Amino acid sequence: MGIDLNFTKGQGTGNDFVLFADPDGQIDLSPAQIRAICDRRFGIGADGIIRAVRSRSLEAGAAALAEDDQAEWFMDYWNADGTLSEMCGNGIRVYARFLAEQGLADVPGGDTLVVGTRAGVRDVQRNAAGYQVDLGRWRLDGGEPLVRARNLAVARPGLGINVGNPHVVVALADQGELESADLSYIPQLDPEPADGANVEFVVPGDPLIVDGVGHIRMRVHERGSGETLSCGTGAAAAALATRYWAGQGAPNQWRVEVTGGTLGVRMFPAEDGEHVALSGPAELVYDGVFRLN
Amino acid sequence: MGIDLNFTKGQGTGNDFVLFADPDGQIDLSPAQIRAICDRRFGIGADGIIRAVRSRSLEAGAAALAEDDQAEWFMDYWNADGTLSEMCGNGIRVYARFLAEQGLADVPGGDTLVVGTRAGVRDVQRNAAGYQVDLGRWRLDGGEPLVRARNLAVARPGLGINVGNPHVVVALADQGELESADLSYIPQLDPEPADGANVEFVVPGDPLIVDGVGHIRMRVHERGSGETLSCGTGAAAAALATRYWAGQGAPNQWRVEVTGGTLGVRMFPAEDGEHVALSGPAELVYDGVFRLN
Repeated sequence: MGIDLNFTKGQGTGNDFVLFADPDGQIDLSPAQIRAICDRRFGIGADGIIRAVRSRSLEAGAAALAEDDQAEWFMDYWNADGTLSEMCGNGIRVYARFLAEQGLADVPGGDTLVVGTRAGVRDVQRNAAGYQVDLGRWRLDGGEPLVRARNLAVARPGLGINVGNPHVVVALADQGELESADLSYIPQLDPEPADGANVEFVVPGDPLIVDGVGHIRMRVHERGSGETLSCGTGAAAAALATRYWAGQGAPNQWRVEVTGGTLGVRMFPAEDGEHVALSGPAELVYDGVFRLN
Repeated sequence: MGIDLNFTKGQGTGNDFVLFADPDGQIDLSPAQIRAICDRRFGIGADGIIRAVRSRSLEAGAAALAEDDQAEWFMDYWNADGTLSEMCGNGIRVYARFLAEQGLADVPGGDTLVVGTRAGVRDVQRNAAGYQVDLGRWRLDGGEPLVRARNLAVARPGLGINVGNPHVVVALADQGELESADLSYIPQLDPEPADGANVEFVVPGDPLIVDGVGHIRMRVHERGSGETLSCGTGAAAAALATRYWAGQGAPNQWRVEVTGGTLGVRMFPAEDGEHVALSGPAELVYDGVFRLN
């Protein structure tokens, strides 16, 4: 016997999600159901599924509550292939808007909503750009592997950056080169990181800095997904790498043009070291009811 | 000010559609709205949009009613790019199921539902495979242009067949060759038909005929859409071409494996010449509400 799943479809810069509220943790989706829901022809179609569940109803949520007792809500995230994911930079921003519009949590401008995730708690805020999430600490990690991509004439050294997940960022010469790269093939990294990495191809704005804000464009190839319209942590990694290359005096605020829109990245000091925050649009597109079998 | 569009998402062998009921013809979607709805990341995502409108509420429907006064319902069909389309073989089958489940029309097994379309009226029936539509007369049309596709070693003569819309069908040697063809590139036809054509790549079953039913597999490249999981008229054209090549005594009933599932094709005599009918699954996946702006 099936049950009806009430869901909302949402997206942030073209990363799209099926969101549903399950406050008491009663809905248990199987990997096969998740794949069926995320199928873009036979199901609803999405990059991932987000369950809004109260932290106290989930074991992982209990750990989040122990970390910050304000983390009433937990973001349970599955990739389209049915696997669990710890965090999603665009997903958590859309999730916060979903909680607000469902009346499950209040996210007034300026105030902070603490959200539990499998990567720990995350602070989300509403701002003029939409929603912002503090992605936490970042670190240089992964060295400078050579990056090769189909249709790029030469290999270039990238920069390994970890923003909760591993990225390699590589700078290209200009917009023409960015457009010519064929990312339907997996970029080759030498040496290849053990767990792979998302690869961001970046072109600096001309000028790079306008009114104290850095400008870059990027395209991204995600591990296991291929080229995507956007990657939140990838945008953060791209801004961090460009600031690193720009050296002393480079700004801590960046505007990152991704294929699916525009994201903001901000670096700021926190108690445990420098954090990086991601902001941008978070849209709820439609509501629906899907029959689970 | 926006209005809420109540819709149902449906699919037939992976061709997917947004369907909505607008009995009195009051909802007028702009091409920009259609493109926004069909966008797979920022909208609902679909190959096309189908409006269920009473024939008497539409000028084209009045023409359908004049042709057959039982055509109470009209299928108004738009492609994902916002252009009108005359007919869609998988779409009209899903449309019939939508009418039945919405309680707008009764489609009992065995009985015929007459549907108005911009290509004239079409008869739809419910059967064991799901829903069947009589696509009407077909004709050899377009000669035998040479077909070239990326990763196929040699060019082969195809067969031009018109099933309301133009197709070129080409037979390949075996399953391996069918899989190796790279249809992310547009197949080249020589000579090139003035209006282009959908191109079907077909491999005969082994054996071709089982219990009086012909078996083929196919992949299809659709004009303006690229490779798709299924094409209803393409499946009919593929069966017709294979029967033509098989010669005297070939069956009038075919099973066509497309990437998104299995379709049935049947040729039968009618008053105005031989008709071809298409049958297969027609599924309604979920209901939703989309805010039109």
